[in-house]
Amino acid sequence: MTNPIPAKMKAAVLFGPDDLRVVEKDVPTPVAYEVLIKVMSCAICGTDPTVLKGNWPSRPPFGTFTPGHEFSGEVVALGPYVEDYKIGDRIAIETHKGCGFCRNCKEGHYTICLNYGKNESGHRHYGFTADGGYAQYVAVHISNLYRIADNVSYDEAALVTTASCVHYAIDLAGGFLGGEVVAVFGPGPIGLMAVELAKALGAVKVFLTGTRENRLAVGLEVGADRVIDINEEDVVKTILAETGGLGVDIAFECSGNKIASEQAFRVIRKGGRISIIGDPHEEVSLNLRDFVLFEMKATGVRGEGNGDTRRSLAMVSSGKLNVKPLISHHFPLENIGEAFETYTQRKGGAIKVIINPN
Amino acid sequence: MTNPIPAKMKAAVLFGPDDLRVVEKDVPTPVAYEVLIKVMSCAICGTDPTVLKGNWPSRPPFGTFTPGHEFSGEVVALGPYVEDYKIGDRIAIETHKGCGFCRNCKEGHYTICLNYGKNESGHRHYGFTADGGYAQYVAVHISNLYRIADNVSYDEAALVTTASCVHYAIDLAGGFLGGEVVAVFGPGPIGLMAVELAKALGAVKVFLTGTRENRLAVGLEVGADRVIDINEEDVVKTILAETGGLGVDIAFECSGNKIASEQAFRVIRKGGRISIIGDPHEEVSLNLRDFVLFEMKATGVRGEGNGDTRRSLAMVSSGKLNVKPLISHHFPLENIGEAFETYTQRKGGAIKVIINPN
Amino acid sequence: MTNPIPAKMKAAVLFGPDDLRVVEKDVPTPVAYEVLIKVMSCAICGTDPTVLKGNWPSRPPFGTFTPGHEFSGEVVALGPYVEDYKIGDRIAIETHKGCGFCRNCKEGHYTICLNYGKNESGHRHYGFTADGGYAQYVAVHISNLYRIADNVSYDEAALVTTASCVHYAIDLAGGFLGGEVVAVFGPGPIGLMAVELAKALGAVKVFLTGTRENRLAVGLEVGADRVIDINEEDVVKTILAETGGLGVDIAFECSGNKIASEQAFRVIRKGGRISIIGDPHEEVSLNLRDFVLFEMKATGVRGEGNGDTRRSLAMVSSGKLNVKPLISHHFPLENIGEAFETYTQRKGGAIKVIINPN
Amino acid sequence: MTNPIPAKMKAAVLFGPDDLRVVEKDVPTPVAYEVLIKVMSCAICGTDPTVLKGNWPSRPPFGTFTPGHEFSGEVVALGPYVEDYKIGDRIAIETHKGCGFCRNCKEGHYTICLNYGKNESGHRHYGFTADGGYAQYVAVHISNLYRIADNVSYDEAALVTTASCVHYAIDLAGGFLGGEVVAVFGPGPIGLMAVELAKALGAVKVFLTGTRENRLAVGLEVGADRVIDINEEDVVKTILAETGGLGVDIAFECSGNKIASEQAFRVIRKGGRISIIGDPHEEVSLNLRDFVLFEMKATGVRGEGNGDTRRSLAMVSSGKLNVKPLISHHFPLENIGEAFETYTQRKGGAIKVIINPN
Repeated sequence: MTNPIPAKMKAAVLFGPDDLRVVEKDVPTPVAYEVLIKVMSCAICGTDPTVLKGNWPSRPPFGTFTPGHEFSGEVVALGPYVEDYKIGDRIAIETHKGCGFCRNCKEGHYTICLNYGKNESGHRHYGFTADGGYAQYVAVHISNLYRIADNVSYDEAALVTTASCVHYAIDLAGGFLGGEVVAVFGPGPIGLMAVELAKALGAVKVFLTGTRENRLAVGLEVGADRVIDINEEDVVKTILAETGGLGVDIAFECSGNKIASEQAFRVIRKGGRISIIGDPHEEVSLNLRDFVLFEMKATGVRGEGNGDTRRSLAMVSSGKLNVKPLISHHFPLENIGEAFETYTQRKGGAIKVIINPN
Repeated sequence: MTNPIPAKMKAAVLFGPDDLRVVEKDVPTPVAYEVLIKVMSCAICGTDPTVLKGNWPSRPPFGTFTPGHEFSGEVVALGPYVEDYKIGDRIAIETHKGCGFCRNCKEGHYTICLNYGKNESGHRHYGFTADGGYAQYVAVHISNLYRIADNVSYDEAALVTTASCVHYAIDLAGGFLGGEVVAVFGPGPIGLMAVELAKALGAVKVFLTGTRENRLAVGLEVGADRVIDINEEDVVKTILAETGGLGVDIAFECSGNKIASEQAFRVIRKGGRISIIGDPHEEVSLNLRDFVLFEMKATGVRGEGNGDTRRSLAMVSSGKLNVKPLISHHFPLENIGEAFETYTQRKGGAIKVIINPN
Repeated sequence: MTNPIPAKMKAAVLFGPDDLRVVEKDVPTPVAYEVLIKVMSCAICGTDPTVLKGNWPSRPPFGTFTPGHEFSGEVVALGPYVEDYKIGDRIAIETHKGCGFCRNCKEGHYTICLNYGKNESGHRHYGFTADGGYAQYVAVHISNLYRIADNVSYDEAALVTTASCVHYAIDLAGGFLGGEVVAVFGPGPIGLMAVELAKALGAVKVFLTGTRENRLAVGLEVGADRVIDINEEDVVKTILAETGGLGVDIAFECSGNKIASEQAFRVIRKGGRISIIGDPHEEVSLNLRDFVLFEMKATGVRGEGNGDTRRSLAMVSSGKLNVKPLISHHFPLENIGEAFETYTQRKGGAIKVIINPN
Repeated sequence: MTNPIPAKMKAAVLFGPDDLRVVEKDVPTPVAYEVLIKVMSCAICGTDPTVLKGNWPSRPPFGTFTPGHEFSGEVVALGPYVEDYKIGDRIAIETHKGCGFCRNCKEGHYTICLNYGKNESGHRHYGFTADGGYAQYVAVHISNLYRIADNVSYDEAALVTTASCVHYAIDLAGGFLGGEVVAVFGPGPIGLMAVELAKALGAVKVFLTGTRENRLAVGLEVGADRVIDINEEDVVKTILAETGGLGVDIAFECSGNKIASEQAFRVIRKGGRISIIGDPHEEVSLNLRDFVLFEMKATGVRGEGNGDTRRSLAMVSSGKLNVKPLISHHFPLENIGEAFETYTQRKGGAIKVIINPN
């Protein structure tokens, strides 16, 4: 049995641009279809520094808003109408909740809900437009809960949305059938997970490109067959040479970088695919002639959709996907400032930095 | 401007198996995300006689339950949080509303919601597990509303779910690209709509099979290229002969009949598809050898899903789909008994029989 | 019965860059799986001026090569092993023939055959890497033949590959289901056909953008609901405004123009698609942020594939697709120079200019 | 370097129904696009006993025909136009070769070529309608060759079509995304491979049903999470109970058995899929009501298509798929009679029995 739920909790609150402070705050009360989650782990995501700048559309007011969207924890209270979950359930969460009734939601595309940011429509984007996981407790709709198996730790569960972003990217791109040759651009957490998931789903050769030696080394550790330091080798020439001139079946652009994006379009085979997951920082300049003449396909990917988090979690708990090599640091909630510094400055080879609020 | 909403209304209520009576009942109050609809037209569907038997799972209690699920009307009141609709909007409805959070709903398959019949989960199946359109007023969730254009009458709008069942069948079967050769089994409303929609989406040859001469005549009227009276001609031989021995690209089984189902599997080409929409009355006995050796596909279809009602409506209002030839009779709500008799006994060549409660 | 086949024929032959001359040449002899076609109509395509420049990869030698790839005619002789065609058959052709055994061909993507231009592999691209239709006779593999119905003229049949390029674009983009809102960029023959085919497959609203008033007028004639002169109106603002701020379901880029390509990416709805058919003349500069955040899809399209020519033809012969409004001029083979001048300078409002060699 | 090719070879020849004898025969000469293969391994397939009965459509004449379709070997001679292979290449083969020009072949479905059995069209079904691998040498079209890596033995390569049948089944059924719950009916070689491939592509739970204890034990060895002896447990009840009442995502019917087929339709979840690979021995009696009401999908699968053999092979050579546990016996070509006896009577727990002709 869990302890009684306190009235107050510690939570990180955004008071202004880049002004995140840990303060005392009321523990929220779960309303219909919501549960109260005692947050055990919340990982810093590459989007968080942007969120902290304070310009995210539909952000809750400064002085009230708690960010954090990659979290896991324990169900400690149930709102009305909750049937499928019970107190004590161990839970991973999904970030996006659609309104459920717009055209995109009805067609299963809740990550691109047309009522984005309208709380009154039922839409939630936890840690962006609604309070998230950098707190001891958070109320979450049952639509966003995934029960985790006993053999999955809370820290691992917090990383499952990183995996499911890639899972959804593969889903949107038309799936995998085994035997794919893959190029991943950018060895950030998403890119590293793309390497790992591609292998777990049957890819036979995975290239990983980047600049930092230590990240490329992690890439090899999680399964990349070939890493390319873009400062040392010509990415396009190398990949074409090592695929018999054909190019790869699918490229995952996970860097947001202009040069990488342009390269990604140039290493795919005739009839190949490119999946763009990295948030593009700047305009790219593309020669689309080969894209047209050789009937390529491109898909953009926002985040974890189509319930694919269920798939990622199942693969973690069955041992097919190992997210542990990406976890580099842990901090208590009080030290969230230091945690962000570690993450953004990549101190100590930081990859995924986890806050443990309880 | 509409008149003030009365407190009481006339509604057909199911008091027991096949005991449907028009009584006075409270006008419902729309709750969050619902609107109150003044019902203008509600068509009798082939499922209604089954519903009236009283055994449908999760049926509301006898003495309270109002069936009717193919309806249209005017928005006369708004519940809380309704933003996208206003009083006076003319509306067609969709029958199924998923819970929005089960696996199937999140993947866009709300017609097969895992919380079917659980009202407290937010699921609704209007006219089956929640009050429907054989009444002067009904409260409906905004998820199920489709605004209709001025050039679409309420009677036509009431038939749009018949069209969207077929639309969804085509969707689930993988779509149309134009040039298809099609066989439709059963000239009921669904089958006739299948003929019409197939043609509107580019099919070049449509066979229609059945027994009743007058229905087959309507089939010709709505676009069938060839009708086959199964008592006069051998369906399988005829279709194979008239497709150069190849068979059709896709067969739509719309009869629920055992013989028709078996024939449908035998007239499709190597690599062809069968879409089963008719509710199967009895076991079918199938030789699946050709299905396996020639890599055929079969899909089952429950009803209108994936927001395809929007597509059907758009095609009606742009003149690509004409549902009027299917409307054979009109009755006021008071005469609903006679309406059902007309429908089930196909009096006067009845096809679609419409109740106009206001 | 056709007349005896002569030993010599008139044919346009490319003697050097932009040096096309009508000369006497041997009538070819069909080899295994080929038929000899007496060419009745051959339309000038937008790619032909590029072909005439002489730089197309794997072009047959100057002094021997006959271009022309949109043609139709009558079967007048059969090579060995031809069973499915007979002398007198009226035929439309498809331009691409794959080798049949490379990975792409086996997967059904013969337009991007990995043995492109290698005649000895069995690959053919008629009018590009093998002799084409600007001649009285041409030998064509049975893989590329489509029998035409009596009600389809040879001139119409010559235009069917224009239609099937768009048909294949829709195929690659995932198909149509009816009810689509569409934007077409560029009112050339491909763009105009995109308008027409989109409507024939159930689209409810089609925008067409361009610069020339007369072409936009043809656009209206073939079914565009709204034409936008890009010199008069802001394309992106207009389309967004007239789609309730949502954007279109699918954009077809048919101009090859840099500005149009960039606009096409900006008018599609969240979750929408862009199909790029126009051969891109220059690099495009794209902000891919919305593409990623709103999960859009892009596909490149080379030409008519997947046997979709069969679909286009079926729709022409059943009256669903009317290619006649695109035919503006006819010339005998002798006047092919004047024909090209008419086409490239758009004399007399030229759209499709047809050569009739017999 | 290989030895000179002899003029004569040993080959098993079918002289009449079930009359297979090893005789001396001319070594074939590869024609255009063919290579000569020195057969190293040829596995007995479940279809072979049927082939030996002599009724297969388009069988070559008794007294000449050599069956055997799961084989591997070394390229020892090249026919004209062969560019991509060289003498000494180690090769796995695919059984079906389409004509390349019928509608189905052009769309990528060469396993259901419309010119099946017409040798003059270019179609081949090695070991069925053309000579196969129970011989020291066989001529094979380059369309059917897959080069094998050094770490893959000839025996393993001979089993790759067993794997690719299942691979293609998954392909036709719409692919895997990881996290699937699967039921496999029938622990024959195809069923066992379905277990293994499902796991290799990310399935998290695989049920396997059958009757023979030793086969179910092999099932556990190759990765089944749960085996069900149908004589001991109620298959449908067990699977539903162990999936929380939901059923499985996909069922693979690999037995050809009537009861198993009927069960397979009853254990899939709402919205689930069934893939039928087993050649159905007799009619099945199906209640399709749930299939319709819960929008299920069924696909039939003939054999290895869509180039998926490339995928299976890549997974074998990268260690993701281990076919060795299925290889139970080896025989020299002379003892082919004993080999068939071992296979059909399952002597010594026979699963896959391999002939090594050289």
